[in-house]
Amino acid sequence: MNTPSEKALVPFVSVDQMMQLIHHIGLAPMLRGLSDRIEGDFRRWPLFDKTPRVASHSDVGVIELMPTSDGEVYGFKYVNGHPDNTRSGLQTVTAFGLLSDVATGYPVLLSEMTILTALRTAATSALAARVLAPKGSKVMAMIGNGAQSEFQSIAMQAIVGIEEVRLYDTDPAATKKCARNLAGSGLRVVACASAEEAILGAQIITTCTADKQYATILTDNMVGAGVHINAIGGDCPGKTELAPAILHRADIFVEYPAQTRIEGEIQQLKADHPVTEFWEVLEGRAQGRRDAKQITLFDSVGFAIEDFSALCYVRDAIRGTAFFTALDMLADPDDPRDLFGMVARAK
Amino acid sequence: MNTPSEKALVPFVSVDQMMQLIHHIGLAPMLRGLSDRIEGDFRRWPLFDKTPRVASHSDVGVIELMPTSDGEVYGFKYVNGHPDNTRSGLQTVTAFGLLSDVATGYPVLLSEMTILTALRTAATSALAARVLAPKGSKVMAMIGNGAQSEFQSIAMQAIVGIEEVRLYDTDPAATKKCARNLAGSGLRVVACASAEEAILGAQIITTCTADKQYATILTDNMVGAGVHINAIGGDCPGKTELAPAILHRADIFVEYPAQTRIEGEIQQLKADHPVTEFWEVLEGRAQGRRDAKQITLFDSVGFAIEDFSALCYVRDAIRGTAFFTALDMLADPDDPRDLFGMVARAK
Repeated sequence: MNTPSEKALVPFVSVDQMMQLIHHIGLAPMLRGLSDRIEGDFRRWPLFDKTPRVASHSDVGVIELMPTSDGEVYGFKYVNGHPDNTRSGLQTVTAFGLLSDVATGYPVLLSEMTILTALRTAATSALAARVLAPKGSKVMAMIGNGAQSEFQSIAMQAIVGIEEVRLYDTDPAATKKCARNLAGSGLRVVACASAEEAILGAQIITTCTADKQYATILTDNMVGAGVHINAIGGDCPGKTELAPAILHRADIFVEYPAQTRIEGEIQQLKADHPVTEFWEVLEGRAQGRRDAKQITLFDSVGFAIEDFSALCYVRDAIRGTAFFTALDMLADPDDPRDLFGMVARAK
Repeated sequence: MNTPSEKALVPFVSVDQMMQLIHHIGLAPMLRGLSDRIEGDFRRWPLFDKTPRVASHSDVGVIELMPTSDGEVYGFKYVNGHPDNTRSGLQTVTAFGLLSDVATGYPVLLSEMTILTALRTAATSALAARVLAPKGSKVMAMIGNGAQSEFQSIAMQAIVGIEEVRLYDTDPAATKKCARNLAGSGLRVVACASAEEAILGAQIITTCTADKQYATILTDNMVGAGVHINAIGGDCPGKTELAPAILHRADIFVEYPAQTRIEGEIQQLKADHPVTEFWEVLEGRAQGRRDAKQITLFDSVGFAIEDFSALCYVRDAIRGTAFFTALDMLADPDDPRDLFGMVARAK
């Protein structure tokens, strides 16, 4: 066994360590911290290298790489989406991510991101709702009660101030699971028998279902004036959740248009349908909510900068803690040109 | 501490474990095994998803992701290239890679690839030379005596049967290091004072220098009839090693034209300059070496399929050994929809 030098070691945050980190910080404070970090990075949006994710599609799912860089730090996430995985007891989405130093190319953090993605998605949704939803929104309909639903609910509570979630899923067992997990959160939890019932009195409607096909989770007549729709389940080509008529009544806010037009709800619209980039609203360059009757839609597909923000948050949060392990991941010979000698001497 | 299930664990091969694996198998047999695996994958080339690598450039270097898939297994490599890194005692190139199961999206191997990339690059060069170099080649000039040079020499010995390497580098210390490392290899090692001296009597000329700029390592008058040139140092935009006149006299073989035209020696030529895809030579679809006077050039930039082959080789080689560690990298709740419950219960 050779002892690698400091430079060769990459801090790795395992699934267990991520869970311990969440409990150490607290879920609500961590969601707020992530949301602040994402807001900060959205506000310097033009600085980032942006590219639609690099997707490898198969009949049963997709594997994607999502890179970005702010010129000093480079990050990417590996993430899959396999809707049928749950049938064999696997996660629909698993992910991990990496940060590295642009100046040297050396990785500085490797982290699980299955859990972290759930948190950053919820933190991003809540950031958008804080800005776009009607002032004083207290009730959210949560349609689709899968792995993302509790994180969405807690983030909307912590960041927007909602007090009631109204749950609906085509599978009542999912709703039961979600309600059970949210007991004790301080939220009023109402399990509903239909999507129509779930949206009663809701100022925010979150849709998060996992079918890889054009589905209509919300029909046009279900959506009244003034609501904010947070659509996060439509996130790949051929996978949408909203009836096109809703899109035509709504003002649409997106992360990165080039990616959203491929993957989001707006893939159902013409390529030049007007949308607003959400970062421009944060920066005061574009209008957010105009009035109380307007329907705002955050057509969220998840963008690489959100993962970058989350990884930077974790990199800072683990400093001085035990919530990581040092991985011997980088070859680091004493003489950088002598890789062969290092291998030879390892015998 | 929660005990993760089997599905949540990803085999990880550290730098130290990779070095132990090389000694366990033996460097020459491992290079031959890698070369065979690469040949096998090149022979089913049309099956693979192919895309030019996804590069993030900065003033001082580049960070790249290189994904590919054969429809059953997906792989990608993270690799940086920072020529100035050696000045601060860091590697010019560091890398790691991942394989995953296309059917589920779940990762099945994470591995260091700084060392493995050196091996796969050498194995690919030797595979090309075995097919394209003059029959009975016994002498190789090795111009550029950095981290890659010994691996190139040993691979050419193990796979092509060369008996003599003639070393040259602008830095004599690099040549000394390379000569020292090759002592005992069975190769006749000749340290040369110039590139002109190094190519005397060589049937194979390998160029592997690291400047990120247009350089002329070989001028036109240095290259005689009948040689095989293995050009591996020109591997990003603006970085080449050969005088254009040589390219016009040579028959040029490449890995993946779409990438090589951006990164290889042929970036100096018109976009429609004829090149032959090397896999077609292996498959008998295109001619390789035609006669003893022809100059053949393998304009190699490194392609994702070679990394894929190398990772598959490692995945198979570590089975039943201790040369890996199981990483708790994937969240795996009992109920896949209950990610939140898993986090909550970890408290």
